[in-house]
Amino acid sequence: MLGNCLENVRKSTPLVHNITNYVTVNDVANALLACGGSPIMSDEPEDVADITTICGGLNINIGTLNKRSIESMFVAGAKANELRHIVLLDPVGAGASALRTNTAIALIEKIKFDVIRGNISEIKTLALGSGTTKGVDADAADIVTEENLEPMVAFAKDFAEKTGAIAAITGAIDLVADAEKCYIIRNGRPEMSKITGTGCQLSGIATAYAIANPENKTEAVAAAVCLMGLAGEIGYTNMQQGEGNSTYRNRIMDAIYNMDAETLNKGAKYEVR
Amino acid sequence: MLGNCLENVRKSTPLVHNITNYVTVNDVANALLACGGSPIMSDEPEDVADITTICGGLNINIGTLNKRSIESMFVAGAKANELRHIVLLDPVGAGASALRTNTAIALIEKIKFDVIRGNISEIKTLALGSGTTKGVDADAADIVTEENLEPMVAFAKDFAEKTGAIAAITGAIDLVADAEKCYIIRNGRPEMSKITGTGCQLSGIATAYAIANPENKTEAVAAAVCLMGLAGEIGYTNMQQGEGNSTYRNRIMDAIYNMDAETLNKGAKYEVR
Amino acid sequence: MLGNCLENVRKSTPLVHNITNYVTVNDVANALLACGGSPIMSDEPEDVADITTICGGLNINIGTLNKRSIESMFVAGAKANELRHIVLLDPVGAGASALRTNTAIALIEKIKFDVIRGNISEIKTLALGSGTTKGVDADAADIVTEENLEPMVAFAKDFAEKTGAIAAITGAIDLVADAEKCYIIRNGRPEMSKITGTGCQLSGIATAYAIANPENKTEAVAAAVCLMGLAGEIGYTNMQQGEGNSTYRNRIMDAIYNMDAETLNKGAKYEVR
Repeated sequence: MLGNCLENVRKSTPLVHNITNYVTVNDVANALLACGGSPIMSDEPEDVADITTICGGLNINIGTLNKRSIESMFVAGAKANELRHIVLLDPVGAGASALRTNTAIALIEKIKFDVIRGNISEIKTLALGSGTTKGVDADAADIVTEENLEPMVAFAKDFAEKTGAIAAITGAIDLVADAEKCYIIRNGRPEMSKITGTGCQLSGIATAYAIANPENKTEAVAAAVCLMGLAGEIGYTNMQQGEGNSTYRNRIMDAIYNMDAETLNKGAKYEVR
Repeated sequence: MLGNCLENVRKSTPLVHNITNYVTVNDVANALLACGGSPIMSDEPEDVADITTICGGLNINIGTLNKRSIESMFVAGAKANELRHIVLLDPVGAGASALRTNTAIALIEKIKFDVIRGNISEIKTLALGSGTTKGVDADAADIVTEENLEPMVAFAKDFAEKTGAIAAITGAIDLVADAEKCYIIRNGRPEMSKITGTGCQLSGIATAYAIANPENKTEAVAAAVCLMGLAGEIGYTNMQQGEGNSTYRNRIMDAIYNMDAETLNKGAKYEVR
Repeated sequence: MLGNCLENVRKSTPLVHNITNYVTVNDVANALLACGGSPIMSDEPEDVADITTICGGLNINIGTLNKRSIESMFVAGAKANELRHIVLLDPVGAGASALRTNTAIALIEKIKFDVIRGNISEIKTLALGSGTTKGVDADAADIVTEENLEPMVAFAKDFAEKTGAIAAITGAIDLVADAEKCYIIRNGRPEMSKITGTGCQLSGIATAYAIANPENKTEAVAAAVCLMGLAGEIGYTNMQQGEGNSTYRNRIMDAIYNMDAETLNKGAKYEVR
C-alpha cells in the first residue's frame, strides 16, 4: 500500500542531493523535510561527487541550468550510477530551448535514471523530439485527458520501457508508469498551477520515496504523486477568506508535513492499468 | 481605467522571461502567477535567446549580477529588442558599486528599454551619475516628498524623455512618468520596506502589465504600481495578532492574487500631472 | 543584558553583506529585516569589495559554494578585514565534502573571523580535521548533551582561543564561547530542524548583532542565539491546527520581527561558565 511507502520514508530519513534551479530550491528543501527526508544542495563540479556519495539519491532539475551546473549534473549522475543510487531527472523546460532539450537528451543517454518526472510536453520532447512546451508549462494540445487516456498510458509505458526509467507525467491527470503497469492518478487541484514549484517539490519527494522503497520503486513514485496531489486538496480545504496562492503554498507543504499513512491510503485516487 | 489593464493581464497570461537575482526570484515567480502572468527564469547565455523568443517580455534585474548573468542580460536584451518585445530594467543597487552602476548604464546604452523601475537613488545614479544608494535602499536625502514633488515630477519626465523608457520611481510616493505625463501614486504601506523583494515583484508584474497593454504602457505600469501598493494596504488590514514581516509577505501576494478590476479602480490613489 | 543588544540593532539598522547559499538566501534577507538589520547580497568577485565597503559586516556562508563565490569570499573577507568590519563564517557542510572542508579551513587561515557559527560536526571538522557531518546536519555521535557539556564547553573555549573568533555551536543545546567564557543556551524547539535555514538566518542575524554591539560581541552573539531559539518557542505556541513546517517558518520569522528587549530578557534561558 502507498502508506507503507510513506512510512518507509519517515523511518529512514533519506538524504537527497539536489542539483536544482534557484527559483524553487527553498521549497524543494522544505518539502523534503516535510515528507521526512533530508535535503542537501550542491552544484559545483568539484563538490558534487563527494556530496552525492554521502546521499541516498540524486535529484537533477534543469530549471535554471548553466554551463557549470550542467557539468555538475553529468559528474554527479555518473557517480550516483557507479554507487547504484537512485537518480531522478526533472527536465524543466525541455522543448522550450535548444539547450534544455539537448541537455535533457544527453543526460538520458549518459546517465541511467530511475525516474523521469515532467509535464507531458517535456516528456514528449524527450520521447519524440517534439512537443510544444509553453515556457515551463505543458501545452494545452498535449494534455492528458479522459478522452486520450488509453493512448497516453501506452505512451507512458513505452517511454518507461525505452528509457528504463519510471515515467512520472504530471498534470490534471497524472501517470506513473514502468514498462508493465501504469498508475493513473486523479488527486490534486487546478489552483496548484498558480504556485511555482509544486512539480519541483514533487521531484525531490519522489527521489526520497524511491530511495526509501528500493524494492517497490514504481509504487513509491506513485505514492509521492498521490501525496502531492492530496496535500493540494487538503491545503485547499484549509484556505481562509482572503487567502491566495502564497498562503496556499504554505498550506500544501503543511499538509505534506502532517500526512500519515492512513490519510494517504484513504485519500489517494488511483487505478492501475 | 487601471482595472482594464488588470483584466488584460488576466485574459492573456503574458509569459515573462526573468533574468533576476536569486534572493527574491521565488517571490517574482509567484507574484507573476498571482497577477495572472506566467514566469520563466533563465540566465545562461546559451539559453536566454531561445527563452526570450517564446516570451512576451523580458525583466532584467541586476540584484545579484555576475559575469555570466551580465552577458545573458545583453544577449537576451538584444534578442527582445529585435523581436520588439517589452523589456524592463530594475537597476538594483546602482550607485552601490561600480559594477552595478556601470552595468546598468551600459544596458541602457545598448538595449532599448520600455520601462526602468527603481528607487530614487538608483534612478538618480543612472540619470546624473550620482545619487547615494544605501545598499539596496534609497538614501533618505534623495527621497520623493510632498515638498519636492514638483521638481521630482519634472526629473521623472526628463529621465523618461532622455531614455525613451517609462520611468517608475518607487518609494513612499511613487512616480510613473513618460515624457508627457506623470502618475503620482500614494498607495502602499511603510511596513512593505521590511520585506525583501516587493520592488522585484513589482518589476516582474509591471513587465506583464506592459506586455498585456501594448497601446497603453504608461497607464499599465501605473496600474501595476497601484496594484502592488494597494495589495500592501489590503494585506496589512488582514494581519492578525502576533504576525510580522514573513506573514505580511504572504498576505500581500494573496491580495495580488485576489485583486479584481473593481477593487483596483476603487483603491488606486493617484493623480496625473 | 541581552535586550540592550537587541535595541542597539534596532537603533542602528546594521547593513550586512551576505555571500550565502541560494537555498535559504531569501530567508536570510527577511530575517535580517525582521531583526532590525538590512541585507545586501553579492557574490561576484568584481562586485564584492565595493559592496562590503558600504556595509558594517560580512556574513560568509558556504552552503552552495562554487568557484566564483569562493573567490568572492576571499576578496570580500580581505576587504572587510582591512576595514575592520565584522566577519562571520558559517561553514555549512564542512566535513561533508573535501571542497567544503578545505574552503572553510583556508578561509580561517586567510581571513580573521569575529564569529564562526556552525553545528558541532562542522566545528569539529574545523577544529580537529574530523567530525562526521551527515549532509548539512550534525551527526548524532557529535551532539552536545547535558552529559558531555563540561568537555564541550572546554572545546568551544579552546576553539575560540585558537581561531580568535567567537564560537557559536548550535544544536539542541547551544554554546557561544570566547576564550574566557561560554554561554550555554537552552532556548529553541526540536521542530526547528524540520525547516531549512534557521541556522543560516541565525548567522545573518548574529552578524547584525555583532556589528551593532562592537564592545560586547560575545554577549551580542549569545543574544542572537537566544533570540532565534526564543522565536522558535513563540512561533510554536502560535501554531494552529493543521499547520506544519512551512507555516512554522513564517511564525518564527514573525516572532523575530515582533521581539522586544523585555521579551528577550525574560525568555532567554542561559547560563555562563
